Amino acid sequence: MLEIRPILYVIGVMLALLAGSMLVPALVDAADGNDDWRVFMAAAAVTLFLAGGTIFATRQAEPQPFNIRQTFLLTTLSWIVIAAFAALPLRFADLGLSYVDAYFEAMSGLTTTGSTVITGLDGMAPGILLWRAMLTAFGGIGIIVMGLAVLPFLQVGGMQLFRSESSDRSEKIMPRATQIAANTGGIYVALTLVCAVAYWLAGMSAFDAITHAMPTMATGGFANYDASLGFFNSPAIEWIATLFMFLGGASFSLFIMAYHGRPQPIWRDGQMRWYSIVCAVAALALAAWHTLQNGAPWAEAIRHSAFTVVSIVTTTGFVAADYTTWGPFAVALVFALTFVGGCTGSTAGGIKIFRFQILFATMRRQFFGLVNPHGVWQATFNGQPVPPGVPLAVTSFFFLYGLSVMAITAALGLMGLDFVTSISSAATALGNVGPGLGDIVGPSGNFSTLPEGAKALLAFAMLLGRLELFTVLMLLTPSFWRG
Amino acid sequence: MLEIRPILYVIGVMLALLAGSMLVPALVDAADGNDDWRVFMAAAAVTLFLAGGTIFATRQAEPQPFNIRQTFLLTTLSWIVIAAFAALPLRFADLGLSYVDAYFEAMSGLTTTGSTVITGLDGMAPGILLWRAMLTAFGGIGIIVMGLAVLPFLQVGGMQLFRSESSDRSEKIMPRATQIAANTGGIYVALTLVCAVAYWLAGMSAFDAITHAMPTMATGGFANYDASLGFFNSPAIEWIATLFMFLGGASFSLFIMAYHGRPQPIWRDGQMRWYSIVCAVAALALAAWHTLQNGAPWAEAIRHSAFTVVSIVTTTGFVAADYTTWGPFAVALVFALTFVGGCTGSTAGGIKIFRFQILFATMRRQFFGLVNPHGVWQATFNGQPVPPGVPLAVTSFFFLYGLSVMAITAALGLMGLDFVTSISSAATALGNVGPGLGDIVGPSGNFSTLPEGAKALLAFAMLLGRLELFTVLMLLTPSFWRG
Repeated sequence: MLEIRPILYVIGVMLALLAGSMLVPALVDAADGNDDWRVFMAAAAVTLFLAGGTIFATRQAEPQPFNIRQTFLLTTLSWIVIAAFAALPLRFADLGLSYVDAYFEAMSGLTTTGSTVITGLDGMAPGILLWRAMLTAFGGIGIIVMGLAVLPFLQVGGMQLFRSESSDRSEKIMPRATQIAANTGGIYVALTLVCAVAYWLAGMSAFDAITHAMPTMATGGFANYDASLGFFNSPAIEWIATLFMFLGGASFSLFIMAYHGRPQPIWRDGQMRWYSIVCAVAALALAAWHTLQNGAPWAEAIRHSAFTVVSIVTTTGFVAADYTTWGPFAVALVFALTFVGGCTGSTAGGIKIFRFQILFATMRRQFFGLVNPHGVWQATFNGQPVPPGVPLAVTSFFFLYGLSVMAITAALGLMGLDFVTSISSAATALGNVGPGLGDIVGPSGNFSTLPEGAKALLAFAMLLGRLELFTVLMLLTPSFWRG
Repeated sequence: MLEIRPILYVIGVMLALLAGSMLVPALVDAADGNDDWRVFMAAAAVTLFLAGGTIFATRQAEPQPFNIRQTFLLTTLSWIVIAAFAALPLRFADLGLSYVDAYFEAMSGLTTTGSTVITGLDGMAPGILLWRAMLTAFGGIGIIVMGLAVLPFLQVGGMQLFRSESSDRSEKIMPRATQIAANTGGIYVALTLVCAVAYWLAGMSAFDAITHAMPTMATGGFANYDASLGFFNSPAIEWIATLFMFLGGASFSLFIMAYHGRPQPIWRDGQMRWYSIVCAVAALALAAWHTLQNGAPWAEAIRHSAFTVVSIVTTTGFVAADYTTWGPFAVALVFALTFVGGCTGSTAGGIKIFRFQILFATMRRQFFGLVNPHGVWQATFNGQPVPPGVPLAVTSFFFLYGLSVMAITAALGLMGLDFVTSISSAATALGNVGPGLGDIVGPSGNFSTLPEGAKALLAFAMLLGRLELFTVLMLLTPSFWRG
């Protein structure tokens, strides 16, 4: 009943593409005269060998459309397997990483989280830096396609809100995903290039501009320096990053419509409006606190606050200034924003703005219904009635999100981590944000000193959050395997 | 549209009864030769004067049945007003309490929370001690009647699960509440008397036996000694308390059925079964930890663990041993249990067992629905299909509960309280449990040193939790007042 061969076939094709992409950092390292090109060639060879074998063993004369269970399995399995091979160059290179370290780093890139276990990034060979950036770009495009084509079909956590007619039919799922990937890919690459040119004009080297533009648009947060974007100490670069992170957290379906000559939805979309308001209000509140409490100059306060808020809400995780030294309100605000997330159909993680909209509408409806048991009042989203089942799916998502944070926090605590490190690591991994709180995993620390088990668990948490909980947890239920 | 006169009339009658009940501690103090009898007489006079005026001003020739909005308003307003007058003797007596202190104490009793702001309980005059115990008894009976007759009618937080045919009609609400009060009152008083006799046989004085039996059955947690039940240092008393707290947290509708010759539902009721299992498993886990980690003797560990777990799950809050010295697992477990709560239709607060059952069934249904979009599988509760609307009401309740804890924690933090004190105070007040964590509000501390604003906020939190959130929050929505 659960035919696994076509799933492996698709994953084989993805791995072949991944192997091909490893040639890019190999060429860059070779041109740079760096021996790491061998590392990438070796990883590419291993990956291609296994990909070829898988494709050969599982090819079918007449491919059938995927059913729901196959789509669930493919979705989770593809991220797990791709991260496993994307980790190879990081393991093979002379970085002192264990395989778990390398897997953590690869999963962090592919889920566009941006937490790193590598120290001493400054002055590292270009191949590894480029590979990390490329992983965020792959993950960014991957999750946009998932968010627009696959997850609405799977109906996880209220995503059926974004079903179009064609995503309703299982035979359309793969063709539609391919079409959306083509549509989105062009816009995505174009925006990344514009971002890179802007960085370059603002003073970055061409290499830095490209390798920071990729994680900016992907809201991935990998930087080429231990001090993240704070390394450049440049207001222009910070504002450019703020703008393109914001675009990365916006719904790409709006960009596609704008590209096809219909820009109006951008201004009319409720999710986009809430997203903008949340960013603006939080940035102003943080800037006001930073100025009044710490005496920071207004221009600097507003720049650092806008950068920090957008970096966290879009779940990018770039750091320009260490907000954890700004006092308790700043820390509490940033921690709360860790949960929010950007728009659906974007590269941002977190709970996502539309779920807060649905939650708010649902709560209003609940209170209305209590005093008007027979009253008629329809909760709406973007002017349309909220479909039945969506409110419960969204409140269930909130519950599972909170439960996941608590369970991961407890598990990290049992591994010996302190409470602040545990809960902020859990929240930042699940939200695909990047930095946590405290000395160890805070914005000026990194994840390298955590125990292996904690890194493995956090890599799982990144996947869990990235695929909207249900998609992954589904595979842990007996009813999935019973069919 | 929202006719307020009949509401004030009912509250007036309640206040008259409250004034009458003040004569009991007055008589006890007078018999004891204590001057506090004047305090109670003065409070009774003020209360009766206002009650009489209200009744006289609002009496009606032909009383109409209450509509939904009137019932909401009456429910919340009656607790607020009764606490305001029940606080008078505590304010008038020579205890050094401000009015906010006295109000906190009265609300703590009436909501059967059991947090206290009074220090030096040992050797206090009997009238005040009796009055505190009586408040928990009033609150206990009050909340059972609410839980069986009023809240199912109001449908708050999934309580419509417990609607009977007669609770479906608004004209039946007051007669039914009166009938249930009569039915329950007898059983409740009988159980309290049995508990008192057991305490007395185990070595308490007659006065201590009666004044501890009342908060035991009410799961209220007020004791006559700063060391709570630990003062007696008696295994027999602790086991008796454990048994009767457990009964206080069980659904009284089962007792009513048993009294009418149908005891089977007690064994077959799903909520009762989960409630028993939660208590047993948590007590065994805690005892195992206490023995293995701290080397406590088994008999002592199981006794203190059973007592502590039942005290917290039933939201009583009696303390026999300071579990916060037992290590991190014990603290984390007790904190988690703070949220659980007992059965609905009992005197226990918290989220309540049935909501966890509904949540679990809802999550199973959600996952089932994802792989079987057209599959038929009905979530059930006690063998009956869960009515539509209940799952969403329950998940909304969980969300509002979490949000309330966070909001109250944040507000207490802004008042200068440390994090552990803030979050444990918020959780313990909202769950009507009693003790929090930390040096200030922990099991060996009390709430007297908190700022006035914090006490007022926590009194509000007790009311919010006691009336199942929606009932109180409803009054803060514009749609309630628009009608």
